[in-house]
Amino acid sequence: MTEPGASALERAHSRRDASLSQLREFLRIPSISCERSRSGDVAAAAEWLAERLRALGAERVTVYPTGCHPIVYGEVLTAGRGSPTVLIYGHYDVQPVSALDDWETDPFDPTITGNELRARGASDNKGPMIACIAAVEAVLHAGPMPVNVKFLFEGEEEIGSVHFREFLEDHRDLCGCDLVLNPDVGMLGEQSPTIFYGLRGMYRCRLRVTGPSRDLHSGGYGGIVENPIHVLSALVAGMHDGGGRITLPGFYDAVREMSEEERSEMATLPRNEADYLAQSGAPQLWGEEEYLPAEREGARPALDVIEMRAGSEKAAIPAGASAIITVRLVPDQLPESVHAGLEAYLEEHAPPTVRWEITEWSGFPALLTDRASPGVRAMADAMKAVWETDPLFYRSGGSIAAVGYLKEILGVDSLLTGFSLPDDRVHGPNEKLHVPSWERGTDAVIHFLYSLANELRTD
Amino acid sequence: MTEPGASALERAHSRRDASLSQLREFLRIPSISCERSRSGDVAAAAEWLAERLRALGAERVTVYPTGCHPIVYGEVLTAGRGSPTVLIYGHYDVQPVSALDDWETDPFDPTITGNELRARGASDNKGPMIACIAAVEAVLHAGPMPVNVKFLFEGEEEIGSVHFREFLEDHRDLCGCDLVLNPDVGMLGEQSPTIFYGLRGMYRCRLRVTGPSRDLHSGGYGGIVENPIHVLSALVAGMHDGGGRITLPGFYDAVREMSEEERSEMATLPRNEADYLAQSGAPQLWGEEEYLPAEREGARPALDVIEMRAGSEKAAIPAGASAIITVRLVPDQLPESVHAGLEAYLEEHAPPTVRWEITEWSGFPALLTDRASPGVRAMADAMKAVWETDPLFYRSGGSIAAVGYLKEILGVDSLLTGFSLPDDRVHGPNEKLHVPSWERGTDAVIHFLYSLANELRTD
Repeated sequence: MTEPGASALERAHSRRDASLSQLREFLRIPSISCERSRSGDVAAAAEWLAERLRALGAERVTVYPTGCHPIVYGEVLTAGRGSPTVLIYGHYDVQPVSALDDWETDPFDPTITGNELRARGASDNKGPMIACIAAVEAVLHAGPMPVNVKFLFEGEEEIGSVHFREFLEDHRDLCGCDLVLNPDVGMLGEQSPTIFYGLRGMYRCRLRVTGPSRDLHSGGYGGIVENPIHVLSALVAGMHDGGGRITLPGFYDAVREMSEEERSEMATLPRNEADYLAQSGAPQLWGEEEYLPAEREGARPALDVIEMRAGSEKAAIPAGASAIITVRLVPDQLPESVHAGLEAYLEEHAPPTVRWEITEWSGFPALLTDRASPGVRAMADAMKAVWETDPLFYRSGGSIAAVGYLKEILGVDSLLTGFSLPDDRVHGPNEKLHVPSWERGTDAVIHFLYSLANELRTD
Repeated sequence: MTEPGASALERAHSRRDASLSQLREFLRIPSISCERSRSGDVAAAAEWLAERLRALGAERVTVYPTGCHPIVYGEVLTAGRGSPTVLIYGHYDVQPVSALDDWETDPFDPTITGNELRARGASDNKGPMIACIAAVEAVLHAGPMPVNVKFLFEGEEEIGSVHFREFLEDHRDLCGCDLVLNPDVGMLGEQSPTIFYGLRGMYRCRLRVTGPSRDLHSGGYGGIVENPIHVLSALVAGMHDGGGRITLPGFYDAVREMSEEERSEMATLPRNEADYLAQSGAPQLWGEEEYLPAEREGARPALDVIEMRAGSEKAAIPAGASAIITVRLVPDQLPESVHAGLEAYLEEHAPPTVRWEITEWSGFPALLTDRASPGVRAMADAMKAVWETDPLFYRSGGSIAAVGYLKEILGVDSLLTGFSLPDDRVHGPNEKLHVPSWERGTDAVIHFLYSLANELRTD
């Protein structure tokens, strides 16, 4: 640990309450990107962030409009041209809060109980963003910057980073860097800091099945016209076999199997069946039995219908039924191939009593990153300094489109980590943040910035 | 035809425009019984009806409050004690208009195009009610009443006649009658007046499947926790076999088979596969091939999931998924037995990855009525006089709880008919009424009132 590091940590510790207040202010803005009526709130969150970056002393702070929600940029390049540059990625948009009844507190009125800060976005991703901002603020306050820092915050992560790719293409120089720090993943436990070296990709579409030309009285047509809800149900049910494997034609053809070495390592990870059971609250786990849950999460594909919506209270056979299907992809599956497999499945299995169509499909592939890079070494050092234990290396089951775009367009790897815990109820009701882990996260980012300078200096 | 009949018909014809205006006024009230926010409108429709009955000259006109929507009563007993009494049943509540986008005109702004009057409730059941009121008005105006008439209009037919039974139990004398005229069914075609001698019964419940204790991030748990949407889909899909038969244990045990005589008659009915295809707009029909569509409609049970609702746009495995299941029952199926069969099915087929529960179940059995009663003869005479053809006898696939309650509590049969056509889009968007059939309906009710007096006099 260098002297400026100690001083930065002191600064960060003295400002913990202030940072927490800032986070709470940020969480009060309901920046739900998928709801049109919230566009104003999403924009307000972008402006709030820009204001934070300006207050910190960042330069060239700009809120860039896109076709939908803006992107916020700012930079602290005082380390100079000879020093490495790390780009800190984050997203200030949040998931919706559909099941409002299940929230014990107002999702946009951040509430602290013991060590928990409860609010939509607390873990995903506003808390980790504020931890990074607080770390840079402390390092900047403590003395000369060890590395250059750029901030790049988008407002469309939860809706597939629709305009992020285009923005990167248009701003290659602005975003140029040696490494991306992405704190949008998490850690496996309070005492298990984690670096993620894999992300699953994503295929997403809407499937619509239509039968009669209008809703039909179920008395007049029950038993005579096949109900699109029943057809869609059968199609969805048939997408898995009894062993949890996906039945779409060719689905597993491109799936890269793990090496024996990787499987051995995965078997030692401190996240077992009991953890998944406890954290999910499911009566029993499910899936491909020949793989451990951690393997199924990170290295095996998964198909989920996330929404099905059809009919109404009225006694009618509805004209149609629709579902949103998502597939978490693993290396080397391509969204295009999964799409083709789904179409082949529907052609084979949809009965002649209905018509079907797939609309709005999109996707991006899975990613594996280099576990031996200087950035990873720097973060491992930092984590060891803060948690006094080596980080775990894990494949995330999640999907972050932005990571792929940053690799593809800027040619840079993302260092995937985070300070949220597996039971933080990310995307669900009562999302929360474990405040002590979040505070350690700030410390870890401070350490990381100094370690990264050392790593890249000795390279 | 007696003289007063001719005079009543003249009166009705001279008031056709006035009756149509009244109907349009009635249709403007959005009396959707299943939507709490519409309670005021439902009450307004009841008051409107009461006012109509008073204007007609009915006595003891009362809007009876119930635990939910009121019941409207009125009577014209001037025929005297020695004359038969017919109770005219109707319901002034309507189905919701959920798929508003599919309506070509405002469902509560009645629109006339050619012979069609388009509005929610035009056919089901406001049009037929106004036809009956207009008929009684005309008969009353023409001279002495041939029979006594009672009006009984409920506001909860579309939600299962929740308080109708209790009302009948509390008002047995008030509602006492020789026969019920129920114009809530319809006719098989413009030139095919129809008397229905069967109604299917109804079983209805909500099935809820729950898996994890909260919505789970589909990246973190996809492939590890079974998705309740998939489970519910498989359960729904498994409720039918490939031949359109329902697989619930014991489901067909009590089903009464049709006689060969009845099947022969059904085979001659002028409603064939092509009619069902054209009227439904389905690409292909479906169901038990060993029965004709008309047999499947009236004499075979049908199971339909009318609503399935689960998940949201957010990338999560939802904590639960639910469906509303309805079963149209035939003689001699009991709702209790179907419920037990559904429970047995779920016990056998629901996987250990979820919990399930059935809530809010209710039901009532199917009905067959006497085709040789004086009331049926009187209506057959009336229809022959108006359409110059004998009526068809048909089993309706629909379900009207009130008919069973009237039989059970008052001991009276309902004469089931109506003036709506199979393509009237009842319960669907763009519901309409064929105005000439509706006008003939008024004439038929006028004839019926006189014929009924004759039939019962000669008995």
